Amino acid sequence: MIAGSIIHVLRNALGEGNFQLHEPCFAGNEQRYVQECIASTYVSSVGAYVERFEKELAAYTGVRRAVAVVNGTAALQVALQLAGVKTNDEVIVPALTFVATANAVQYLGAVPHFADSEESTLGLDPRALRDWLNSVAEPAGDAYRNRQSGRRLGALVPMHTFGHPCDLEGLLAIAHDYRLALVEDAAESLGSRYQGQHTGTFGLLGTLSFNGNKIITMGGGGAILTNDERLADHAKHLTKTAKLPHRWDYVHDEVGYNFRMPNLNAALGCAQLEQISEFLASKRRLFERYQEALAHIDEVYLMKEPSGSESNYWLQTLVLSDAVGGQRDAILQATNDAGLMTRPAWRLMHRLEPYKKCPRAPLPVAESLAQRLINLPSSAGLA
Amino acid sequence: MIAGSIIHVLRNALGEGNFQLHEPCFAGNEQRYVQECIASTYVSSVGAYVERFEKELAAYTGVRRAVAVVNGTAALQVALQLAGVKTNDEVIVPALTFVATANAVQYLGAVPHFADSEESTLGLDPRALRDWLNSVAEPAGDAYRNRQSGRRLGALVPMHTFGHPCDLEGLLAIAHDYRLALVEDAAESLGSRYQGQHTGTFGLLGTLSFNGNKIITMGGGGAILTNDERLADHAKHLTKTAKLPHRWDYVHDEVGYNFRMPNLNAALGCAQLEQISEFLASKRRLFERYQEALAHIDEVYLMKEPSGSESNYWLQTLVLSDAVGGQRDAILQATNDAGLMTRPAWRLMHRLEPYKKCPRAPLPVAESLAQRLINLPSSAGLA
Repeated sequence: MIAGSIIHVLRNALGEGNFQLHEPCFAGNEQRYVQECIASTYVSSVGAYVERFEKELAAYTGVRRAVAVVNGTAALQVALQLAGVKTNDEVIVPALTFVATANAVQYLGAVPHFADSEESTLGLDPRALRDWLNSVAEPAGDAYRNRQSGRRLGALVPMHTFGHPCDLEGLLAIAHDYRLALVEDAAESLGSRYQGQHTGTFGLLGTLSFNGNKIITMGGGGAILTNDERLADHAKHLTKTAKLPHRWDYVHDEVGYNFRMPNLNAALGCAQLEQISEFLASKRRLFERYQEALAHIDEVYLMKEPSGSESNYWLQTLVLSDAVGGQRDAILQATNDAGLMTRPAWRLMHRLEPYKKCPRAPLPVAESLAQRLINLPSSAGLA
Repeated sequence: MIAGSIIHVLRNALGEGNFQLHEPCFAGNEQRYVQECIASTYVSSVGAYVERFEKELAAYTGVRRAVAVVNGTAALQVALQLAGVKTNDEVIVPALTFVATANAVQYLGAVPHFADSEESTLGLDPRALRDWLNSVAEPAGDAYRNRQSGRRLGALVPMHTFGHPCDLEGLLAIAHDYRLALVEDAAESLGSRYQGQHTGTFGLLGTLSFNGNKIITMGGGGAILTNDERLADHAKHLTKTAKLPHRWDYVHDEVGYNFRMPNLNAALGCAQLEQISEFLASKRRLFERYQEALAHIDEVYLMKEPSGSESNYWLQTLVLSDAVGGQRDAILQATNDAGLMTRPAWRLMHRLEPYKKCPRAPLPVAESLAQRLINLPSSAGLA
């Protein structure tokens, strides 16, 4: 049984004990900054840590502006709105993604349109997508529309699965040719680079998540990245209830959101961001350790950063060969029973009740991958 | 000039120095609980403080269930959805409110319908509302609709302005007669009681806010209150991405939200909630001090808790007589220039660009109050 071999490998790599999928690591200034924040009484919408986090995050990712918000879902919702997505538009997203990618589209009254992934990146496959758009997209005014639904195609949202950058070059070309706004869902890929440039900075806007299971966390938290100052200012405005600056008047000039990041959470984030290099190094070591330990099992391989990319290795991922794809659930059962937390990829979006009637391309690779991916314990500090 | 007299009164009551409108007070276990939370590594979606906060908040407000969420706006959006508000419904809200009340309606694709307030509570006026509904509402199936717009009237959302309970008895009768779900926006009224019962617990659901300027804060934060276990379970499900419980599968059975409260913020909230009685006592003392100091100025009075109610006195509020209503901006200017932060009531909802085309009742009292209300420095700890 392959499940037994995998447990053996994980035990060799990790030692005895129970292992979560991904635990945060607070080894820096977390306590100090949070204590300072409480002592200052500025725990909420105003405070120095939010500004500092935004500046440091922008510097780290090499983007002009970062806008801190309450979580990655909110970041993506606002980014899509700023990219011009309107009610009843369609937005192309991978079928293989966390549900937030589709939800953010839905919140805007738009419709997710699911596309296939490729095995080499686990992200959107530009060749398959171009073939699909060639068959379903037709010009309509200054945009393209889905000739089957009649809806405008508003945006393209690549997601960097488990931290592995997808083929941005191919996707940017499609976005250009079909006049789609490209908005990167980089929720999982803080620290990942494509051809040397940080993910989340290629499109018009990109978004990050700092949820508890992410490579750095602030309890919740997310951010919008953009090189467009005007869009960044608008993102800040929209996420702070669209209130116009005034000493006392409460005038809001559009329907805004209460999506600002509290200063308390930003304090935690500043401490976490200081340690990102150590976290990345640790995750890379864990990848190497797992890879070596898995080398003798022919039926599986460990997902490796795509060529030309540098991955953050957020979640280590076992890829089963077709031959043992049928044993996925047995492996999940055995590893979780042994205290080694593993999980499969998410249920594909078009197989979820709320999204099963949405438009979609043929999804053979996503369907296959969904049966063959298993995430392994991946916390920073394991290696 | 009345502005000079008011500054004199405020200085007598507060002493020298600059005074914010409302600052949080962290005099309890804030540092300890937050440190414990970080040390446990459970800062995010899982953690003991969220559960504890929900239990203690439910006990304090005397409601069966409290569901902690990321902020008061999110709480209201979800409460309205659970109360059955659908796209294109109308929801009756006060014109005199913070913009979040209207935004929460808008996020659901529904339309706010603005109603007038009464001077004695600063909240919705049941007599004026009944007259208005008598003229515009007509039965349609098992609900009523606005005969002018044709839209279903879905819910009624009283808001307890600055912490003063509005006339819930009258509003509950209207909700009954017009088959409206009553959802209380109690964002400002934690600690306020109507006929002995805590605000936010009268309707099908109620919502609270713990934003930085509120009577207790957790940086951000909000909660949904309900006596209906099924609705509470559904609120929890919806605010945690509607993921079905499973050891490893990611199946979401409806379009959910990433609205959970992080454990880090809940830790702060638990410490704050322990001090609510002291905060309320301090605010009541400040009311008494201001009231005494203002007694000799005939043209203004201090907003007092409505008869039969116990207010939390969240924001102390000066009400100008018509005779000096024209001096509002001069008073705001002079007090703010003197380092005494004051502010007027919010710009009325139907006067904001995004909501100016929404249906509305005649709003004479709201229009008048909007010109005559001034909030004074109100932090707990000032008295």
